[in-house]
Amino acid sequence: MYSQQELSRFFEEKLREERFDGNPHQLYDPIQYMLDLGGKRLRPVLTLMGYGLFGDDLEKALPQAIAIELFHNFTLIHDDIMDNAPVRRGKTTVYKKWDSNTAILSGDTLFALAYQYAQKADSDILGEVLSVFSRTAIEVCEGQQMDLEFEKKNDVSVEEYIEMIRLKTGVLFAASLKIGSLIARASKEDSETLYKFGEVIGLGFQLQDDYLDTFGDEKIFGKKTGGDIVTNKKTFLYLKALEKADDTTRKQLIDLYSKTGDDEEKIGTVKNIFRELKVDNDNIELINQYFNESISFLDKLNASDEKKQELRKVAENMIKREK
Amino acid sequence: MYSQQELSRFFEEKLREERFDGNPHQLYDPIQYMLDLGGKRLRPVLTLMGYGLFGDDLEKALPQAIAIELFHNFTLIHDDIMDNAPVRRGKTTVYKKWDSNTAILSGDTLFALAYQYAQKADSDILGEVLSVFSRTAIEVCEGQQMDLEFEKKNDVSVEEYIEMIRLKTGVLFAASLKIGSLIARASKEDSETLYKFGEVIGLGFQLQDDYLDTFGDEKIFGKKTGGDIVTNKKTFLYLKALEKADDTTRKQLIDLYSKTGDDEEKIGTVKNIFRELKVDNDNIELINQYFNESISFLDKLNASDEKKQELRKVAENMIKREK
Repeated sequence: MYSQQELSRFFEEKLREERFDGNPHQLYDPIQYMLDLGGKRLRPVLTLMGYGLFGDDLEKALPQAIAIELFHNFTLIHDDIMDNAPVRRGKTTVYKKWDSNTAILSGDTLFALAYQYAQKADSDILGEVLSVFSRTAIEVCEGQQMDLEFEKKNDVSVEEYIEMIRLKTGVLFAASLKIGSLIARASKEDSETLYKFGEVIGLGFQLQDDYLDTFGDEKIFGKKTGGDIVTNKKTFLYLKALEKADDTTRKQLIDLYSKTGDDEEKIGTVKNIFRELKVDNDNIELINQYFNESISFLDKLNASDEKKQELRKVAENMIKREK
Repeated sequence: MYSQQELSRFFEEKLREERFDGNPHQLYDPIQYMLDLGGKRLRPVLTLMGYGLFGDDLEKALPQAIAIELFHNFTLIHDDIMDNAPVRRGKTTVYKKWDSNTAILSGDTLFALAYQYAQKADSDILGEVLSVFSRTAIEVCEGQQMDLEFEKKNDVSVEEYIEMIRLKTGVLFAASLKIGSLIARASKEDSETLYKFGEVIGLGFQLQDDYLDTFGDEKIFGKKTGGDIVTNKKTFLYLKALEKADDTTRKQLIDLYSKTGDDEEKIGTVKNIFRELKVDNDNIELINQYFNESISFLDKLNASDEKKQELRKVAENMIKREK
C-alpha cells in the first residue's frame, strides 16, 4: 500500500499527462488553469486508496480518481462565482480572471468531462459507479444550496450545520473511497463501510478547517485567521456558542455577526467569547468523536492491517492537521 | 409507429409523473418551474422515434428521453443567465425569477439528474449511451461558447456560424435520435445514419428559426419579428449579406449592427438590404439543401418505409414550420 504522499505524487503526474486544451480555447483555458492551481488532491488520493485496499493495479482506478478531481474543481469554479470569491489557492479565481459567463460554461464543461472519465469503468460495475457519482453530485449541490441559505437564515441549528457539511464535503470523500473500492470489486459491505468512513472523516476535515480558520497558528496555517468571523460565517463554533451563551452574550454575538468589515477588534472579541464558552473545546471534542468513529469503521473493513494503517494515517492527517 | 403529436403527448404525461421536489426546495423549485414551462419536447420525441424505428416497447426509451429533456432544460437555465434573457416561453426566466446563484446551482443539479436518467440504460449499452451523452454535452457547451464569442467578433464567416449552430443545436437532435436507436439495439450503421439525419435537421431547424425571426408572419409566428436584428445577432442572413454586399452596403450593415436599441426603422432597413441581396432566398435554399440531405440519410436506414414516413414528417415540421 502506497502512502498518501506517494499517491499524491503519482496522481499529480498522471493528471499532468491529461491535457484539457480543446477548442474554443476560451472554454478550455480556465479548466486547465484551475487544474494547474494544484491543491492536496485529497479526494483522488482517497479513490486510489479505496482501490488499493482491495486491488493491485492502481492504473485501473485512475480514470475514477481523475473524474473525482475534475468534479471537485467544477464545484469550486461555480462556488467561487456564488461566493464572490476573488482568490483561491493564492491565485485569482476563474470568474475574476475571466468572467462569470466563462466560469459557468467552463464549469459545465468540466462537469461533463468528469463524467467522461467516470464512465470508463468496466461495464459490470459502470452502473453502480455512476449511481454513486450522480447521487453525490446532487448531494453536493444540495449542500451548497443549504450553505447559501444559511447566510440569510437566523435560526440555523448545530444539527443543520452538520448536515450541510455532510452534504457539501462529507459525501464526496465518502464517494471517492467507495468508487475506488468498487473498481477493485470490493464486497458491498466493505464498500459501504468505506463510504461511512469517508463521510465521517469528511465531517472531521471540515470541522478542523473551521477550527483552524479561527484558532489556527498563522505561522503554520499559512494564512490570516479570523476569516469566518469577518464574513459572519455560521460555523459550528458560532452556532454552538449561541446554544451555550446566556441572553446577554447571545445578543452580543448576534450583534457582532450583523456587521460587515474587516475588524481586528471584532475577531478578538468573538474569539474571547468562543473561549469563555469553551466551544473551542467542543469543536475539538467533536472532531475526535468523528475520528474515533472513522477508526471503528476502519476496524470493520476486511483488508490487511498494514493497508488499513495507511488509511488511518490519512484520517489523522486530514483531521489533526494544523494547516 | 406513433406520430410526433402522439409521442409528444405520451412524453408530456410521463414527464409529469416524475416529480422534482427534493430538499432544499429552493434548489428544486426552479427545476420543476422550468420543466413546467412546457415546450414542443422535440428532442425527447426524437429519442422515442429513434427507438420506435427498431423497437416496440416505448417505455424502454423513456429514461433516455427524460434525460435528454432534462439536459436541454439545464442548458436553457444556464444560457438565460449568460444571455441576460428575462423571458422564456412567455414566462420569467429562472435567473430573473430567483437569482443567478440559484440558476447556476439548480442548473448543475438538473445536469446531474439528467445523468441519473441516462444511466438507467442496460449495462450492455450503458457505456455507449453515456459516451454519446457526455460528448454531446461538451459539444453543446463549445457551441454556446462560440455563440458568446461571436457577439464580440467582427469577422465571423458563414462556415463558422454553421459550425456554431451544429454544436449548439444540431448535435443534441442527433444524439437524441441515436440514443433512442441504441436502446432498441439498432446496428452501428443505422444509429450513425440516424445521428447524421438528426444533425442536418438540427441545422435546418436553427436556420428556419433565424429566418422566421426576421421574415416570419407575426400572426402565425406568435411573437414580434426582428429580434435578431435588434440585438445585432450574427445570423446566416447577416453574415451572407456581408459576403454578398458591395463595400457601401457592407459598411451600412456593419454600422447598423453597431447600434443598440429597439428601432422599427433599423429593422425595416436591414430587411430591405437582406431582400435586395436575396439572402432570404439563400437562407431558404440552404434549409432545403439540409432537408434533402436529411431525406437521403433517411433513405439509407434499414427500417420500414411506414416508420420512416413518420420521421420524414417530423423533419418537415421542424424545417418547414411557420412558427
